[in-house]
Order: sequence, then structure tokens, then C-alpha cells
Amino acid sequence: MDKFFNPKSVAVVGASADEKKVGGMILKNLLESGFKGKIFPINPRRGIIQGQRAFADLQEINSPIDLAVIAVPAEKVIEIVLQCGQRAQPIKNLIIISAGFGESGDVGREREKQLSFLVKQYQLKIAGPNCLGMINPWKNFNASFSGALAKSGNVGLIMQSGAFVSAFLDWAQTDQVGFSAIATIGNKTFLDEIDFLEYLAKDEKTKVIGLYLEGIKRGKILCQKIKKISQKKPVLLLLAEGGNKTQAAAVSHTAALAGESLVAKKALERSGALVFSKVSDFWLALVFFSQFKLPVGQKILLITNAGGPAVVAMGLAEKSSLVEIFELTKEQKKILKEFLPISASVNNPLDLLGDADEERYRQVLEKIKFFPQVGAGVILVTRQKQTAVEKIAKVIEKIQGECEFPLVPVFMTNVATTKKLNFKNFSCFEEALIGLEAGIAFSQKPISAPSKIVFETNSSRSQKTKKIFLQAQKDGRVGLFYKESRQLLAEYGLTAAVSQDWVQGEVFSADFFPAVLKVDDPKIIHKDVQRGVVMGIENQKQLEKEAERLKKFFPQSRLIVQPQQEIDLEIILGIKKDPVFGQVVLAGLGGVAADFLGEKLFFFPFLDKGVVETRLKGSILEKIFQKKKISLEKLAEEIEKLLCLAEENSWLKEMDINPILVYSHRDFVAVDVKVLF
Amino acid sequence: MDKFFNPKSVAVVGASADEKKVGGMILKNLLESGFKGKIFPINPRRGIIQGQRAFADLQEINSPIDLAVIAVPAEKVIEIVLQCGQRAQPIKNLIIISAGFGESGDVGREREKQLSFLVKQYQLKIAGPNCLGMINPWKNFNASFSGALAKSGNVGLIMQSGAFVSAFLDWAQTDQVGFSAIATIGNKTFLDEIDFLEYLAKDEKTKVIGLYLEGIKRGKILCQKIKKISQKKPVLLLLAEGGNKTQAAAVSHTAALAGESLVAKKALERSGALVFSKVSDFWLALVFFSQFKLPVGQKILLITNAGGPAVVAMGLAEKSSLVEIFELTKEQKKILKEFLPISASVNNPLDLLGDADEERYRQVLEKIKFFPQVGAGVILVTRQKQTAVEKIAKVIEKIQGECEFPLVPVFMTNVATTKKLNFKNFSCFEEALIGLEAGIAFSQKPISAPSKIVFETNSSRSQKTKKIFLQAQKDGRVGLFYKESRQLLAEYGLTAAVSQDWVQGEVFSADFFPAVLKVDDPKIIHKDVQRGVVMGIENQKQLEKEAERLKKFFPQSRLIVQPQQEIDLEIILGIKKDPVFGQVVLAGLGGVAADFLGEKLFFFPFLDKGVVETRLKGSILEKIFQKKKISLEKLAEEIEKLLCLAEENSWLKEMDINPILVYSHRDFVAVDVKVLF
Repeated sequence: MDKFFNPKSVAVVGASADEKKVGGMILKNLLESGFKGKIFPINPRRGIIQGQRAFADLQEINSPIDLAVIAVPAEKVIEIVLQCGQRAQPIKNLIIISAGFGESGDVGREREKQLSFLVKQYQLKIAGPNCLGMINPWKNFNASFSGALAKSGNVGLIMQSGAFVSAFLDWAQTDQVGFSAIATIGNKTFLDEIDFLEYLAKDEKTKVIGLYLEGIKRGKILCQKIKKISQKKPVLLLLAEGGNKTQAAAVSHTAALAGESLVAKKALERSGALVFSKVSDFWLALVFFSQFKLPVGQKILLITNAGGPAVVAMGLAEKSSLVEIFELTKEQKKILKEFLPISASVNNPLDLLGDADEERYRQVLEKIKFFPQVGAGVILVTRQKQTAVEKIAKVIEKIQGECEFPLVPVFMTNVATTKKLNFKNFSCFEEALIGLEAGIAFSQKPISAPSKIVFETNSSRSQKTKKIFLQAQKDGRVGLFYKESRQLLAEYGLTAAVSQDWVQGEVFSADFFPAVLKVDDPKIIHKDVQRGVVMGIENQKQLEKEAERLKKFFPQSRLIVQPQQEIDLEIILGIKKDPVFGQVVLAGLGGVAADFLGEKLFFFPFLDKGVVETRLKGSILEKIFQKKKISLEKLAEEIEKLLCLAEENSWLKEMDINPILVYSHRDFVAVDVKVLF
Repeated sequence: MDKFFNPKSVAVVGASADEKKVGGMILKNLLESGFKGKIFPINPRRGIIQGQRAFADLQEINSPIDLAVIAVPAEKVIEIVLQCGQRAQPIKNLIIISAGFGESGDVGREREKQLSFLVKQYQLKIAGPNCLGMINPWKNFNASFSGALAKSGNVGLIMQSGAFVSAFLDWAQTDQVGFSAIATIGNKTFLDEIDFLEYLAKDEKTKVIGLYLEGIKRGKILCQKIKKISQKKPVLLLLAEGGNKTQAAAVSHTAALAGESLVAKKALERSGALVFSKVSDFWLALVFFSQFKLPVGQKILLITNAGGPAVVAMGLAEKSSLVEIFELTKEQKKILKEFLPISASVNNPLDLLGDADEERYRQVLEKIKFFPQVGAGVILVTRQKQTAVEKIAKVIEKIQGECEFPLVPVFMTNVATTKKLNFKNFSCFEEALIGLEAGIAFSQKPISAPSKIVFETNSSRSQKTKKIFLQAQKDGRVGLFYKESRQLLAEYGLTAAVSQDWVQGEVFSADFFPAVLKVDDPKIIHKDVQRGVVMGIENQKQLEKEAERLKKFFPQSRLIVQPQQEIDLEIILGIKKDPVFGQVVLAGLGGVAADFLGEKLFFFPFLDKGVVETRLKGSILEKIFQKKKISLEKLAEEIEKLLCLAEENSWLKEMDINPILVYSHRDFVAVDVKVLF
């Protein structure tokens, strides 16, 4: 991949003298950036383009070419790619800038198919199509049609949208941010984010990686890659939230537990990526990692020259689940009181008063840098009276280098005042907080300590359960009957309530009463909403009456009878098959509030086997289990079993155990199970 | 109050030649701002100060003085104020800039007491102490020691922190924002936010009002004032969130008296204020109201020249509870297709493609301005290729004037590129969204349509209930016994479960079984946690055994017996007395999840009597009641009764009905009631 960022020679196919055309702009950017390698403009009309000799085609050049940047109309791209492959010295690395491929209908998709044939035939690496190009400021290499200049630095970007690159390059100027490499991946038909991630992971200049993705194809591999990389470098991901409105319409059904973008978000977060839905937050966190040390703990100390903004800042810090408030010891207060004015407030926030000059800030920071257990210092400066903003900035910059934790500047002034700073200024505390939270989240890697509970995959078991599925499939059904579902669960040591099919005239034993009568039909999705469940049946006579009534409404469906269970606490467990990330196990609180309240926990077999118990720590489920004195270990065990079940039964599209009743003194029991395939 | 912003003559007491001193800065600001009135510097050394003749004291001046700005050390303030009152032509309006009062301990509080004597004696109006001063850009009047200049405009500010004023004046330069009046209120010992609110409400230049408060004293009046003002002008409130540490910081900063910050937030929101906890959000919303038209509905249309940022923006818009996505009709699409390039996406987001110039934006906006039911247009521009940012800005500015709904610009570039705009640029969609949401929230005033349910206050009833309290108080208790609480509820038509005191040897009737045995002791706060409740007692024998056991743990406490109730859904209702806002009625979901999940609804007797039912609409409680087919009207009725109870029983400090059991086919019943006074 190095050739995409550090080639010795580049051909620009579609180079133009017109700097407003994409091919003209790319050539101009390459020439102006000060790139040291050879540049070959390709244009059928030859001549001199932007002061360079142009070639009619790639064949005309005899020397080897590391990289071709293709900016010709879509219909001509295949031919150019073919030329790349057929050259005596084939060009193996290609960036297709041109649009008009997969993103634009059938003709475009057909073009991608043809490309994919050439990729195999000539073993090509193709970035794009439909992208902005590549930039490597450290090599003065700008093979893109981006307008702004990129300073060299430590931020590596992989962007599925060129427009973000334009915006970030502009913002970078104000925020003094530099880049190690910028890759735009466009349709990512061949090379995708994983290829570029691998490059940035190894690249020594890259300290932090930022990704923007609109779609993910190789979900599990991406997760595993990020899991590894984020042990060393923060991987930040900008991901659109929401999803289309039609999807949101499917409420109260398990499918609504997990919109697809939510699954992606959960899996990637679980792998160690820091996921953002707001461009501004993504950018602030990138800048934070780029310019500041990592917080050495969660505790922050706020140093201020103004009360009001500090009060508001503390409010936000207290609400944050990641940040904690540092408390000064008596000794520390004493040290500071020695030289601060008596009306200064020696607490957190540490109020140096409105007349604080650079010297007072310096004195305080010189002391504070030795305070143990400060995770980060936030330095809030409002321009009061004659506040020497620039001098205070210089003080921060100097002591920043001597301090183990970051000193994060919040100068509440405008750009005009802060433009001479050599670092990002966070113009209010909440902006700094985004960076601090990201830094803390990165330091607190996802839990990976294995728990005691491990269930091994077992192929003879999965063969057995597959038979249940095959039989149901053969019968032309879309899902399993309750009895089959119960059998499936039982193979994994999960208990479902006993049931008996209702047969006209059959007498049920006393154990069944009070009984529940239910429709047992995989086609009926919302039994309870459709009044397919009758509770509290006291005796045989009532049962017969209710069964007769139900049969009228559901003449085609089986009915089953269960002994009614005492309810203490209801949990929902489920499995959903995601097209990109595979089977996902979901856990959440059940009962009436399930649709409106509460967190849903996501577990992935390829990420969470063996660590479910540690992952349950800190959840609302844990708190409720504690309150009810129900064993959390038992719940972890059930989820581990489901992870096994999910992994071994790839035919399973959806399983909804709703509810599973949990007790402190009894085994858990699933009372309703829906399995679809 | 006009004299504070538009005086004919001002005395600056403590005027100094040293422009670094507060008194020097205020004089300098007054002189430099171009103020047309008379200025009298007061300094015991007389002479010429900053080119002006100075007077030794206020007595030396014979002409009337509208306003005195006092910036002398705290210990000299009383004397100056006395002089103001004793003058032949008393100075009635005073701004005390000096710190060293209520915010700084006992000596300071004593000074405020003395001031308050003078205020009464001489009928003075005093702003401050401990404030930054007043600014009225329309009259070139800057009686403050703020550093930056304020442009004239339509934003009125009332700030309990001068530091925010400094920050906002700086930000205003970048964002092209002007001000109608800026009042800093400091300790607000005499004049407070309500006095200045009244002024800004009447002030014709003021279009939007921004408040920052650290403590509220006259809570109910403030609410009523805001309720009235916000019918016409948006009232934005910056309020620190968070818990104890934040409140401690606020108190040490100004002499703030803090009720519970959540209660304040709820009451003020309920009155129509737009409450913010982040400075940046508060500012963005202020700027939005200042510069843009109000959205004419919730539906937004996003016009963009880039796919990626639009996708991310749509995700955020879909997540917003206030914004909706406008859908183009077939006809509208046809109109746009006529002139847009074929690859442009004629949907929402409306993608004009990367090469969109000002002409394409113009053509589209000229059509869109006539589209009915668009509430607001957001115009996203990324700087691609040769995007003519400034020309597009000019187009937006022009069509903005012709369009009924606002066109909100989001140029994703840096300040250097957008500094020539004549309006605020939102640098990313989420910033624009803050403004749009605020605009929509303001347009959708809090519900005030009265419902059918009204309970009138009744003084003979409250005399009766007071007797219950007085008896308990006489007995030296801190709260009521269950029976008394039940009686109190019954007076308001609220049902609590029957109970009987447990007496050794007494035989309970069969109706009581299965029974619950409970400790009945107002001193025991968490009965269930302390194991003071035994459920599921089947018979007399078991009851006696359990009672004996409980008596061991709670030898001093009464025990009561209740028939155990069947539980379908549990609700918690409560009353809390807030020192600032009075009695608050709380409603929320009960049961195991209550501590961890779900919303709590706040109702205030002075705001919500008669409108509870409409206020329940849209709540999670409503959704759950719907699902369970329980009457919401019934719940509204219970809450209305509690509002009555709260209002009539001011002795009541806390009432906790936890739980009240609710059913679809039966009356609600409270099973546990704790009343403290």
C-alpha cells in the first residue's frame, strides 16, 4: 500500500491544462505540493500541460510507473485500466477518481464487474472508483483534487466521502492540525478501509486514525483489525446514526431492537473503536489525540479565572460518565494558598480570579504538574480586564511539555484572539470534554478479561439441532413450533417452560392450572397484541371454552398449554442475524417497559465468548439483579450458552425469548420462544 | 429601569487615570463608546482624569445624576451609597461593581444588610454588587469594565457572570451578532433577573433574551414572568446542571441560593424558557433567534453539495425529537429535475453535486422558497473543487429575505473562508440543529389547554388535614403513620389500601390473607431495604411468627397488616417541597426499574393545575398506560388531586406514594405512603 502514499512515479491519466477540471486540478496539486517523484501527465493531445510534457497514453512511457491516477470519464476507465495491466511494466496501483460506477445504477455496476475481471487478471490494486484521491503531506504528495493544503502531522484519515476531507483540511488550518496520510476510498470496490487501516497501523507518522464509513462489507475482519490496532493507536469512526424511516416503523418486535447501523456501531465499539455520530465531536476527538497527551486517569482539575463558566463546566463534568472530579488534598490546598490571593478559591474548580495574569497561571501550573492522581488539567481562560491571553498560552505550552497529564486549554475568546496559538483552542469546556472523554475511553480499553464460564462449540450438537430446522423447513414453515424451540434450547442447557399441545377433549393434569393457553404459530409475530394468549385459566372447563374461542380467530394454528409461572423479573434474550456482522445476541429488561426504556446489550460470538460476565458489569441489568438478589453469573451463563447456540446454528435468522423469567431462588425459565429461519 | 441603560448623566465613583483599574476601565469604556450623556468622574484627588474634570465626591456636583457606577473597595461602598441617598438631588439608580459582599463571607453579608437598610431608607435601585456593569450599544453606552466592543443588535442579555459577557462579546464578532442591552446582575442582592427581564420584555430593540443564573430566589414570579414574555420573545436560559460539587462552586462564586437545580430546570422549561446546560448550545440558539426567521414547522429540507456530510446530518435529524424530515412531492421533484443535472439526487437531502455553483444554488432556492410545508431549509456547502463559497453566501442572503422560512447556512469551512459573511455560519449540521430545535421548541409553546379535570382548593378541608399534622407534630414525630397518611389522601379522594395495626394476640379476618406485614414508622426511610416488609403471609400463625421476628429488629416501631394486592403495574407519585419553587408533584414508573430507568414528570401547582392530562401526552407513562389499556385520564385525575393536596398543605415537606398500583378494570390503590413534615 506504500505506493499509494509514497510512489516514485505517478501517471495522471486525464491530465488537463484546465485547472477547473478534475484531471487538471490533480496535476496542479501534484506539481504545487512539491512532490519529488516523477509525474507523467497523460492526455491524447500530448503537448505541454501545466509546464509538463504530456504523453498520449501509458504505452508511450518506457520507465516504470508506481501509481496511476485515473480521472477520465467513466466509460473510458476500463480501457485505461486494461492498458495499465498490459504495459510491459504493468502499473499495479491505481486510483480511480472518476465517478459513474456502482453508485450510479446498472451501467455503473456493470463497469465494476469488468474492472473486477481486470483486477484478477493483472493482480491490480485499485482505490476508488469515485474518490478524491490520496494525500501524504510528509512526502509533499497530493494526488487529489482537494482544494486546501494539508500540513504534515500525525492524523491519518480514511474517508468514504471527499467532502469531509475538504472540510477537515479547512478546519485543520484553524486548529493547527497536521496529517500523516489521507486516503479517500470512494466506492471501495476493491481496496477498502481494511487495506488502508493496515497501512496506517504500521505508518510511524500516524498517531491517531480517523475513519468515515457509509457502508461496511467485511464487518468481522474490520472489527478484528480495529481490536488489534486500537491496542496502540486510537481508531475514531464517524458513523451516521438513525437509519431510514421505514425501518423505524417496525416497533415492539425484536427486529426493532437492532437497526443495522446500531449493530455496526455496537460491534465496532466493542472492538475498541471510538464511534461518533457528530462531525464536530469526531473532529474534536481527532484533534485531541493529535495534540495532547492521553489523560492518565479519569480525574480532571479545572483551573479558571472566572466563576460562571467554571460552574457550568463542573455541571457538565459531573454529568459525564467518563470524567471524574479531582479533589485537592489539604496539603495541596496549602501549597497553593501560599501564593494565591486570599479570595482565590482553592478547590476544584480552582479559581485564580479575574485579574490572574500569566505569572499566576505559571505558578499554579508549576505546582499542579506534580500533583499525583490528576488525570488531566483543563485551563479555562476568559478575557477579563487585561487578561494576557497569548502570554498565558505560552505558559501552558511550556509546562505542557513537563507535565505527565495533558493541560487542555479553553480560551473562551474568538479565533482572532487565539489564532497565534500553536495548538488547538477549545472554545468552551464541552468541546474539551469531548476530547477528554475520548482519551479516557481509549485508555480504558474494552474489557477482555475472560470469565470462568466457557462453552465450547460442539459439532455433533449442531448437527442434531440442524435436523430440527431441516424438518421444519421441509414442512414449509418459516419458524419452529414451541416444542422444537424448547428442544433447541435444551441442547444448550437452556430451560423453557413445559408445554402440551392442546387437543380437543384431552384432559390436562392439575399441574397445568392456573394455565396459559397460546397460539403456537411461527407466522404470528405478535401473539399478545393479536390476542393469541390467554392467561389465568383456572380449570379444564375454562380451558376448553377459551380454546374454542381462540380456534375461531386462529383456525389454522396450533394451540399449546403451559402452567402459568409466577413472575418476579422478566428479561428478554434474543438472537438476530446481521448480514454484515453475523449473529448477535441481545439482552435487555422485559416486561411492559421494554419497548420504551432501558438499554439493550449486544453480544457477538466472535468478540464476546467467554467474557460475557465482565461485560455485564456496570449495566442496568447488573444493578437490577443486585437489587433483586438474582445471580448475575447465572445470566452470564445463559448468554454464553446463547452465543454458542448462535454460532453453531447459522441457519437461524431470529430468536426471540420473550420473556425469560428470572428468580433468585430458582432456575431461569423461558416462557415464550420464537425461532425464525 | 431605563436609567440603567439610557441615563442622561452618569457618575463613575472610583474613576481612575489608571486604565488597568476597574474604575479606570469603566470610565475609559464610557468615554470611548461615544456616549452622549454627561459623565462625572469621582475621585477624592480631583484633577483631570482621562481628559475629564474629576470631582472629589458626589456632593460636589450640583446637577441631577441619573446613575452612579460604584467601583471603590467594598469597605467604602456603604458610605458612597449613603451619599447617593443624602444628596440634595438623590441618585436613585446605582450599579455596584465592587466585589466583597455576600459572596465573600460574613463581613460581606453584613455589608449587604447595611445596604438593604439604605435601599429602603432612600428608595434606591441597586444593581450588583459584584457585577461587570451595563451595556446599551444602541445608546453607545458602555458602563462596564468589559474588554470587547458590543455591536448594536437584538440580543438582550442578563448575566450573573461577567466572564460570559466577555466571551459572548468575543464570539459575537465572529458571528456578526449585535446586542440590544447587556445587564450583569452579580449577587443580585436587590435588583434581580426579574427586574431586568421586565425591561427587556418591553424594550423594542430586543428580539431574544438570554439569561445566565447561578441561583434563583423568586422562583414562582420568575416562572410567571417568563411564561408571559415567552409568548412573544424567546427566553433562553443557561443553567448549570449537575450535583453537589457544581452547586458548591456556584455558591462560592456568587452568593447564590440554590434550590434543587433539576426542579428549577423543570419549572422554568414548563414556563416556556428554553433551558441549556452547555454554553455553546445557549450561544448557538441565541444567534439563531437573532439572525434567522422562526421555523414555520418541524419539517426541514437539507440542500447539499456533498453526500457524506448530508448522510451524517440526516442521521442526526432523524434522531431529533423536534425536527422532522420534509418529503418532496412528485410535482416538486419534477420542478427541480427540469434544470438540475441528471445525477443530482432530487430527494431530501437534495444533492446538487460537488460542482454546484452559486447559480445552481440560486435556481434551487428560487423554487424551494415556494414549497409549502417546508419549515426550514438547511444549506450545506462543502468547499469542493472551485466551490464559490462567498457567491453562494450572497445568494442565500438575498433569497433569505424573500422566503417565509429560514435558510440556515452550514458552510463546512473555516472562519478564514467565511469571515466576510454577514450572518452566522454554522460550521456543521449539528450546530444548525441546535438553533432549529430551539426555534421549533419556541414555536411549540408549552401546552396550556385546560383539561376537564379541575379540583378546587378548599380551606375547610385543609384545616382538617392540618389537624392531622399538628397532632403528629405534638407527638414529637417527623412524619405520619400510615393510617394518618391514608386519611390525608382520602380527604382528596385518593385511595390507599386498608390496613390494621398489628396487636399481639389479635386475630385477623380471612380477608387479610395473603397478607403483608410492615413496619409503620416515619423514621424508617427505606423499609424494604431494611427488611421491614414481609410479603405473602398465608395465615394467622405465620403472621404471628413474622411479627415476633420483626419486633426484634424494630422494637420501637408499630407494625401494620395489609391484604396483599395483585400487582399489574406500579407507579410512584410523590410531593417534594422545594425551597424556591414550592411544592412539586412527581410522577414516574415504579417497580424494580424505577431507580435506574425512566422519566420523572414534574408538576407544579402554580403552573399545572387543570392541565395535567394534556401534559401527560407524549410521555412514556402514556405509552405504557396505552399498552396496558389503563385510563390515562384516571392518572391525570390522581395527579390533579395531589396538586390540590400539595397546594393546601404547605406543612408537608415530602410525600412518597410508592407504589400506587394501577389497573385497567379497578381503582388505583396506594399501598405504601410516607409523609414527612
